[in-house]
Amino acid sequence: MAEAGATSVVVVGGGAAGMSAASRIRRLRPNWSITVLERGDYVSFILCGLPYYVKGLVENEDRLVVYTPEFFRMKRSIDVRTHHEARSIDAANRLVEAVDVESGASETFHYDRLVIAAGAEPVRPGIPGLDLDGVFTLHSISSGMAIRSFLGSQMVRRAAVIGAGYVGLEMAEALRGVGAEVTLIEALESVLPGGEPEIAALVDEELRRQGVEVRTGQLAQALEGDGRVRRVVTSDGALDVDLVLVSVGVRPAVQMAREAGIEVGPTGAIATDRRMATNVPDVYAAGDCAEAQHMLTDRPAYVPLGTIANKQGRVAGISAAGGKAEFAGIVGTAGLKVFDLEVARTGLTEAQAREAGFDPVSALIRFPSHAPYYPGARDLTVKLVADGGSGRVLGAQMCGPDTVAKRIDTVAAALYARMSVADIESLDLSYAPPFATAWEGIQLAAQRLLDKLRR
Amino acid sequence: MAEAGATSVVVVGGGAAGMSAASRIRRLRPNWSITVLERGDYVSFILCGLPYYVKGLVENEDRLVVYTPEFFRMKRSIDVRTHHEARSIDAANRLVEAVDVESGASETFHYDRLVIAAGAEPVRPGIPGLDLDGVFTLHSISSGMAIRSFLGSQMVRRAAVIGAGYVGLEMAEALRGVGAEVTLIEALESVLPGGEPEIAALVDEELRRQGVEVRTGQLAQALEGDGRVRRVVTSDGALDVDLVLVSVGVRPAVQMAREAGIEVGPTGAIATDRRMATNVPDVYAAGDCAEAQHMLTDRPAYVPLGTIANKQGRVAGISAAGGKAEFAGIVGTAGLKVFDLEVARTGLTEAQAREAGFDPVSALIRFPSHAPYYPGARDLTVKLVADGGSGRVLGAQMCGPDTVAKRIDTVAAALYARMSVADIESLDLSYAPPFATAWEGIQLAAQRLLDKLRR
Repeated sequence: MAEAGATSVVVVGGGAAGMSAASRIRRLRPNWSITVLERGDYVSFILCGLPYYVKGLVENEDRLVVYTPEFFRMKRSIDVRTHHEARSIDAANRLVEAVDVESGASETFHYDRLVIAAGAEPVRPGIPGLDLDGVFTLHSISSGMAIRSFLGSQMVRRAAVIGAGYVGLEMAEALRGVGAEVTLIEALESVLPGGEPEIAALVDEELRRQGVEVRTGQLAQALEGDGRVRRVVTSDGALDVDLVLVSVGVRPAVQMAREAGIEVGPTGAIATDRRMATNVPDVYAAGDCAEAQHMLTDRPAYVPLGTIANKQGRVAGISAAGGKAEFAGIVGTAGLKVFDLEVARTGLTEAQAREAGFDPVSALIRFPSHAPYYPGARDLTVKLVADGGSGRVLGAQMCGPDTVAKRIDTVAAALYARMSVADIESLDLSYAPPFATAWEGIQLAAQRLLDKLRR
Repeated sequence: MAEAGATSVVVVGGGAAGMSAASRIRRLRPNWSITVLERGDYVSFILCGLPYYVKGLVENEDRLVVYTPEFFRMKRSIDVRTHHEARSIDAANRLVEAVDVESGASETFHYDRLVIAAGAEPVRPGIPGLDLDGVFTLHSISSGMAIRSFLGSQMVRRAAVIGAGYVGLEMAEALRGVGAEVTLIEALESVLPGGEPEIAALVDEELRRQGVEVRTGQLAQALEGDGRVRRVVTSDGALDVDLVLVSVGVRPAVQMAREAGIEVGPTGAIATDRRMATNVPDVYAAGDCAEAQHMLTDRPAYVPLGTIANKQGRVAGISAAGGKAEFAGIVGTAGLKVFDLEVARTGLTEAQAREAGFDPVSALIRFPSHAPYYPGARDLTVKLVADGGSGRVLGAQMCGPDTVAKRIDTVAAALYARMSVADIESLDLSYAPPFATAWEGIQLAAQRLLDKLRR
C-alpha cells in the first residue's frame, strides 16, 4: 500500500520490459507506489519459450513464468493488476484509464512517472479465414495454451506455418515434433528473409531433411473451412490442413501512446532517447513497443527481442526512478535453433550494409567446430561482412550443429567495440583441441577478408 | 631452388610459429629462398593434441602434423631441413650453424633475415631419477610416441603426474583413460596454480570424482627404481608407480639467441617489438621462445600457447618479408578440458590484478547454460574481475560441463577493447532458449559487480 503523497509509477505491460522496469524502480525507490497493468493472466512471462511448450518439451505453462503476480505483490510490493488493459493515457493530467477485461469495469490510475511496455501484436495478414477454428498466432502464454489444447483434443495430421521467420521455423519444428506433416509457406524468396542467403540456404536444406515441405515465393491467399480450417489457398495451389500457424511478424503496440501525443519514430515504434524517455515528460517506453538505436547504422531500428526488452526495461526503470542509466543500443544479434541446426547472426547482412551506405566485402567459410583430429568435430559455416573502405566489421552470420550461438557473441562484442577485421584476427581467443581450433572460424574468415582488402 | 642473389631467410624451428612465418614469407615473396631448420622429424606439428594421442583418441601421430616436410618442399618451395639442430648464430656475419643430428655433420646457413622460433623446453625439476625408464615429459611428437609405445608394451597400473597445470591435468585424464590409477602431485596449494581458487576448487572436485588421487602441497623429491621407475618419493611419503609424467612447465629456448647478443626480456624469453623484431637487425622471434605484451598489465608476459605462436609467427613472417604487421598482444586467454569439465580463463585473476596495481573487485556466480525450462541445462560458474576505481573489466574464469570455452571468448574480446563492466551488461548477445538465457552469465556477473561498484 502506497503512503499518501508518495510518488506513483504506472507500468503498462507486465512482460520482460515492464517487470524489469518495475523491479528496478522498487529496488531504487523502496517507498514509491508501483502499479503494473497487464491485460493477460500472467506477468514476467517468457514468450520465446512457447514453441518448446507447444512441442511438449516444457511440461507446464508455469515454467514460462519467471515470477507469479503474487510474488511481485507480496515480495516486491508491486501492485500487479492482471487482466487490466490500459486503454488511454491523459498526459496532461497524468492519468491512465484501464479496463478490467473480466468485469468490464473501468478504472483510472494517476501517475507521476509512466513506463509504457505494451509489447507487440502479431501482424494479421489481410486474407479471409483468419477467424476459423484451428488458426493461431503465437503471441502470449494463452495463445500457446490454446494451440497445445487444440493439439491435445484434435487430430492434427497436417499443419501449415505461414511465415518463415524465427517463430515460423521454431513452430515448424514444434509441429513436426508432435507428429504433424508441416508445410512452411513464405511469400519471399527464401526462409529467414532478411538474413544472408547462403545461411538461409543451409537452413532450407535442414528443414527439407527434417521432412518440412518448404514453399517459398508463395503467397497465402485464403484460409478455408467449415468453422474449422481445412485448406490453405496459396498463389501456387491449395493444400489440406488441420491447423494453421500465422507468423508473419509483429508490430509495436503504439496506438494508445500515439493518441496521447507520444512520438512514434520512423520504424513505427515509440521513439525514445538513450534514457528510454519519450518526448512527453516523465513518460518512458521500453521493450517490443519501443525503438532501439542500431549501433552500426546509427539509425533507429525495430527489433522486438527479449534480450533488448530486458535491457531497455532496466534502463527505463532506473530513469523513471531518477537514476542514471543509458541504453547503449543494439548491434542486431539474434539466435535460433531449428531442428539440428543452430543459427545466429549479429550486425548487418551484406545487403543491409550496402543499403546503409557502406561498401561491404564478405567472406564465407566452413570450419571445424574443434580440432579435426579430436572426435566429434562438426562443420560450421560463417559469413563475415566488413566495410571495404575502413575495414570495420559490420556483421556475421553463422550456422551449424553446435556452439554457433555462443561463437557469434564474440563478433557481437567486436561490433559493440567497432573493431576492424584486423582486430578480429588479433583477438586472443580460447583454444584447446576438444572445443576449438587454434585459429577460430571467425579469424579464418577475417584472414580471408584481409587478403581481399589488401588486394 | 633459390635464384642467385635472392634474399635468403632462415627460420629456426618448424613448429606453429616457424611454419606460420615461413608460409607468410613465401606468400609475400615468391622468389626468396627460405630454409627451415627443425631438430625433430616433423614440422607444423600440434603439440596440444598430444594428450589425446596418448589417450588413444587420436589414432595416429600423422594426424597431429598439419603438413609434411614434403608438402612444404614441393608445394611451397620451402627448404625444410628436419633433424637439423641450429647450434649458434653469428649475427655479425649473418650465419646460422646447424648440426644434422643423424649424421653429426655441421652445416652453415647464410641469412638476410632470420626468424627464431625455437620453441620451449620442458622444465626438469632438480630431483634424482629423471633418467629412469618410464619417466617422461610431453614436449614433442616423439615424446608422445615414446609414452604411447611404453603404455603399449608395459603394464602401467599406477601413474604419477608431477605438476597440475594444463598439461598435467590433460595427462591425468589421458592416463585414467588408458586404465591407470593416477596420482597428481602438485607442489603448490591447489591444482591449476595461478588460476582463481574458486575455479580450481571445482576442477579439484572433478578430478577426485573421476578417481584421480590429488596431492597438492606436496613436493616430489625423488624418483626411484631399478633402471625402470618404481617409486615417487614426496614430501609426504612415497607411492609405487609404473610411469611418471613430469609436467612442471616449460621455459623458452633462448640460449643460442642470448649467446648471439639477442636481448632476452624480463620474463626470460626473447624481447621483441610489436613487429616481432629483436634488438638485432633483421632478426625476428616468435612463438614459445618469445615474449608477448600483455594488454592488461602493459608489461611483457611469457605465455607459451599455440594460438599466440600462430599469430606471432604470422607477424614475424610479414615483418621479415618487408610487409607491415603488428602483434596486438595478448589478454591471457586459455582453455582446458579436464574429464567432463571445460575450464577457460581470460585476463587477470583477482590476485594478479592486485599485483599489477589495480584495485580489483569480483563477482562469482552460477548460471544455467541455457533456459532452465528447456531440457539439458547445466550449471556453469563464472568469476568476473574488474577494477574498482575505473570499472574496467580485468578478467574472467569460467568452468562447467559445456560451452564454457566459447563463452569466455566474449570476455576476451571485451578485454581487447578495454570494456567496462557496464559495457558487458550492455552487450547485445545471442539468445534462444536451447542455448542461452536472456541475460548471459557474464552479464549477470556484471550486474552483480555494478551493484558492488555503485555502493
